[in-house]
Amino acid sequence: MTTINSVEFVKSKIRDILDFPVKGIVFKDITTVLRDKEGYREIIKFLTEKFQDKNIDYIAGIESRGFIFGAALAYELGAGFVPLRKPGKLPGETLSQEYQLEYGTDTLQIHKDAIEAGKRVVIVDDLLATGGTAGAACNLIRQTGAEVVAAAFVIELQDLNGRAKMPENVETVSMIVY
Amino acid sequence: MTTINSVEFVKSKIRDILDFPVKGIVFKDITTVLRDKEGYREIIKFLTEKFQDKNIDYIAGIESRGFIFGAALAYELGAGFVPLRKPGKLPGETLSQEYQLEYGTDTLQIHKDAIEAGKRVVIVDDLLATGGTAGAACNLIRQTGAEVVAAAFVIELQDLNGRAKMPENVETVSMIVY
Repeated sequence: MTTINSVEFVKSKIRDILDFPVKGIVFKDITTVLRDKEGYREIIKFLTEKFQDKNIDYIAGIESRGFIFGAALAYELGAGFVPLRKPGKLPGETLSQEYQLEYGTDTLQIHKDAIEAGKRVVIVDDLLATGGTAGAACNLIRQTGAEVVAAAFVIELQDLNGRAKMPENVETVSMIVY
Repeated sequence: MTTINSVEFVKSKIRDILDFPVKGIVFKDITTVLRDKEGYREIIKFLTEKFQDKNIDYIAGIESRGFIFGAALAYELGAGFVPLRKPGKLPGETLSQEYQLEYGTDTLQIHKDAIEAGKRVVIVDDLLATGGTAGAACNLIRQTGAEVVAAAFVIELQDLNGRAKMPENVETVSMIVY
């Protein structure tokens, strides 16, 4: 079982970087958890326990830190792994979902034939901030006709209220909340 | 044990995409392996068997498809995971390694404090083509004072002779050779 101790242990390995990517932001750096074999294992264990009894067919990882957690989770659950990518990266026919940034828009893509209608999917990313990317990921998966069971994050920044942007009937799971 | 059958099975799941990213190229699409839970497991099993008795401290995954295989491999080996990224993506202090492209140059970065001198590292990427990126990854790791034990790939395109670009004393491992 994941205990409060394992959450605190992972939290203790996260590094604050001031003024990244822009001045005034305190960036939560998870590379210091990843390089620690115990820290990384605790995260994958936490996510696996959350979803192992939920008949998940696919883990959809958001480019590119979502790949790091999503792929190992898919392996542990015995699920397939599907990458959600920036435009121009996927070689086959794609579906697209645009979303708002502070200035302008961005887009996520998925292969049109990556997930069959009716399948059960969990979206994975490292961080839930304003929820723009994760909300777009949910809508993108829904375009395939599949069901988004949950969206899972290592870190949630609760003041940014991203949880409110997640669509109805999608469970939001975070290991560490700031 | 990984058998010829499991290699052939994974190979059967790889999809050829014509004219991607540019006209005349036949792109080997591994997303069709990833979405197949058995295909993805066979790859991780293959890589794990290759390195489980080699006292590997860190897996270094090359952005971004190398994250998908490298992270699950690190998990299985009980090693740490270190991302090698394009410039501007890592928030802390970095080391850099430039390398030649057909036209111009590109750069890979690693956090300066990601790997301690003397540690044993395996580099992971999805594809060995001309070897420019993988060779740069080896040199980047060596800047930390660590030892690059091997570079491992899911696919090797042998006509492009990337194996010859790998530094001496680095074992090159590929699951599928075209």
